[in-house]
Amino acid sequence: MRPKIYLFGDSITEMSFDDGGWGASLVNHFNRTVDVVLRGYSGYNTRWALKVLEKVFPATEESPLAATVFFGANDACVADRCSAFQHVPIDEYKQNLHSIVSFLKGRWPTTQIILISPPPIDEPTRLIYPFTENKSGLPERTNEAAGNYAKANLAVAAECGVLAVDLWTKMQQIPGWQTACLSDGLHLSKIGNKIVFEEVLEALKKKGLSLETLPVDLPVIEEMDPNDPLKSFEGI
Amino acid sequence: MRPKIYLFGDSITEMSFDDGGWGASLVNHFNRTVDVVLRGYSGYNTRWALKVLEKVFPATEESPLAATVFFGANDACVADRCSAFQHVPIDEYKQNLHSIVSFLKGRWPTTQIILISPPPIDEPTRLIYPFTENKSGLPERTNEAAGNYAKANLAVAAECGVLAVDLWTKMQQIPGWQTACLSDGLHLSKIGNKIVFEEVLEALKKKGLSLETLPVDLPVIEEMDPNDPLKSFEGI
Repeated sequence: MRPKIYLFGDSITEMSFDDGGWGASLVNHFNRTVDVVLRGYSGYNTRWALKVLEKVFPATEESPLAATVFFGANDACVADRCSAFQHVPIDEYKQNLHSIVSFLKGRWPTTQIILISPPPIDEPTRLIYPFTENKSGLPERTNEAAGNYAKANLAVAAECGVLAVDLWTKMQQIPGWQTACLSDGLHLSKIGNKIVFEEVLEALKKKGLSLETLPVDLPVIEEMDPNDPLKSFEGI
Repeated sequence: MRPKIYLFGDSITEMSFDDGGWGASLVNHFNRTVDVVLRGYSGYNTRWALKVLEKVFPATEESPLAATVFFGANDACVADRCSAFQHVPIDEYKQNLHSIVSFLKGRWPTTQIILISPPPIDEPTRLIYPFTENKSGLPERTNEAAGNYAKANLAVAAECGVLAVDLWTKMQQIPGWQTACLSDGLHLSKIGNKIVFEEVLEALKKKGLSLETLPVDLPVIEEMDPNDPLKSFEGI
């Protein structure tokens, strides 16, 4: 049985198998070593995530290698704007993330948990792509709020001793990140997806999880004897 | 637990999560309904596939919704050219496919099996991308041989009463298929990947497996009451 990596999050996770998506890239990278399990739920915040933990991570499953936990973009919706129903106050967000990490640690003590912060927000572009009708002229998300939730995310990761990816900071280091990394001011472009993919690989590597260390599923053709390929299948 | 679709095959399956790959497209399409399990093994023919069935499809697994079985491109290597060690005679190929289908039917009687034929071969391009050194000036695969194995594949599907995708014929209906559908005379371009994706969707649909019929995993945001989103999580 191949070990698993769960991808748990909101739409940025659910959409991660779109063209050039970071989830698809992970499967491609680990195509003989790991099963990647997509558990992305568009629009979800940490309050709703807490309600579904038992369903998403069944106790009957063997301990996965790792799980990405990628929430915050919806929690950080501004409390009195058009996506207010997705908003979660920052203190509750932190507490909810703690609860998610505790749940995973309790269920599978050896699983590597990677908390991924929300990405930065390009506010002008958000006005063009509202999820619900938005006549206010104000974006439903702000980059400042996303930054605060990203900082909270990092703080929880440090408090819990789990891996962290500070996407909010990382992406803003790219010139023209607003359109280079984001497709609609919130979701990821190909470059944005590549950044998440590389950051997750890097985080896994820190814990010794890489192609160099993970066992390969079944004989690879490059190691077979062309004169006796069936020999490779003896005693597998 | 979400139902699963297994993708079992050679490199055209193993590489199906590359940019625009048909495997990634399946995950994206079924991102809240189905888990897609990648079991692609580069270079494998049906003789080697038979050796690994027990490992690839553990008896402990619940019956998957469907499994694609996508072999033949390696079996069809010409017997006396540079990839001869991958060649399997066509009668044995048919028998091996029968054995694979029998194994799956025996293990999981309700699983929909989709046999996918090898793609056509662009011989001039194969000379540019040999797997092993090739000084002969002759391609290790021919389109005629691929066509014969494709016909054999279809015959087995008909004999076993399982779903079939005739990729060899389908792709050659595309003008300039040699470079439009193939990246190296054998493996798939983005267009080639799109064809496989659409053909697999179509095959599944014939058996009533589609987004219209499969249950969605957990509440979707579009159906939540913005004034009481938590209500959607009661009794899940």
